[in-house]
Amino acid sequence: MHRLTDRHRQQTGSYTGNPTNSQWTADMPTLTTYTTEVIPDWVDYNGHLRDAFYLLIFSYATDALMQRLGMDSDNREATGSSLFTLELHLNYLHEVKLGAQVEVHTQIIGHDAKRLHLYHSLHLVGGDKELSGNEQMLLHVDLAGPRSAPFSDAVLEKLQAIIEEQSDLPPPEYIGRVIGLPAKK
Amino acid sequence: MHRLTDRHRQQTGSYTGNPTNSQWTADMPTLTTYTTEVIPDWVDYNGHLRDAFYLLIFSYATDALMQRLGMDSDNREATGSSLFTLELHLNYLHEVKLGAQVEVHTQIIGHDAKRLHLYHSLHLVGGDKELSGNEQMLLHVDLAGPRSAPFSDAVLEKLQAIIEEQSDLPPPEYIGRVIGLPAKK
Repeated sequence: MHRLTDRHRQQTGSYTGNPTNSQWTADMPTLTTYTTEVIPDWVDYNGHLRDAFYLLIFSYATDALMQRLGMDSDNREATGSSLFTLELHLNYLHEVKLGAQVEVHTQIIGHDAKRLHLYHSLHLVGGDKELSGNEQMLLHVDLAGPRSAPFSDAVLEKLQAIIEEQSDLPPPEYIGRVIGLPAKK
Repeated sequence: MHRLTDRHRQQTGSYTGNPTNSQWTADMPTLTTYTTEVIPDWVDYNGHLRDAFYLLIFSYATDALMQRLGMDSDNREATGSSLFTLELHLNYLHEVKLGAQVEVHTQIIGHDAKRLHLYHSLHLVGGDKELSGNEQMLLHVDLAGPRSAPFSDAVLEKLQAIIEEQSDLPPPEYIGRVIGLPAKK
């Protein structure tokens, strides 16, 4: 069930339009990090995905990204490092039903020597509509401490390759948000 | 395991100090909505609570608050309404280990006719240290639509009683946050 998919590699990577007038198209580089079915353990009395299990799916997507960056569990034993979640924000945009086939698209927003800022969005498999968005700030940790530690050159190189592939992606809509009640009329 | 506790009712509700110089004390009104043990299903390879399962614990705390407000599942069938999660923010402050006994404290931040803004914090049972904080914006929904709907007078009355009990609580530290990389030096 926890398949790592790579829809990007099956795509052309080409797109039309100029940077000042760019729009999302199916040909743009989508990094699909995770695909799953919504299972009975994850839904509420009403057959809808519970809020915490949206995050479990996004959490598995981060695991899959770690694997892509050479930080999977095999490597973790070799390198002794991992990514810890510092902070995250979630927007619930649409209900997701039991049995739905869903996938996570991942966009790298930025990084420094030790931190990775990313955005996951949830979609029906093959669908454009965003069902939920999840902004995450992650910290690279040396498990021997545990203490924060710079990314290795090998990880930075893989990260940079993804960033270059995604350089024409527009910024996600649900990013940098503050929670608050709407202003009174 | 999913006990609804009410530590507040066992407390005096009295505190010392004046409003301009108030500090948190054990006598201040803490609303403990949920208590649980960290079970094997919820921890990673390293025996630490996975990010998504912090949120599952907070999600159960919201369920418990609904029960306290007269919106539990028995009433849900009677009233046909529920709370949907619109948006949330999570801060991970400390690791939590397998077998830990933890509790959630809940503070009502505000509400309007249809929305409830609250803050949960996670603690070891009886502990003051905040292990994680979770700001949530919830929407009251008439399940017959489903469509957003005003809270009933009975729910508003219970909500107002909690707000009055908590009027002297300081605002949570991890609220109203925007995710971003630290500014470069």
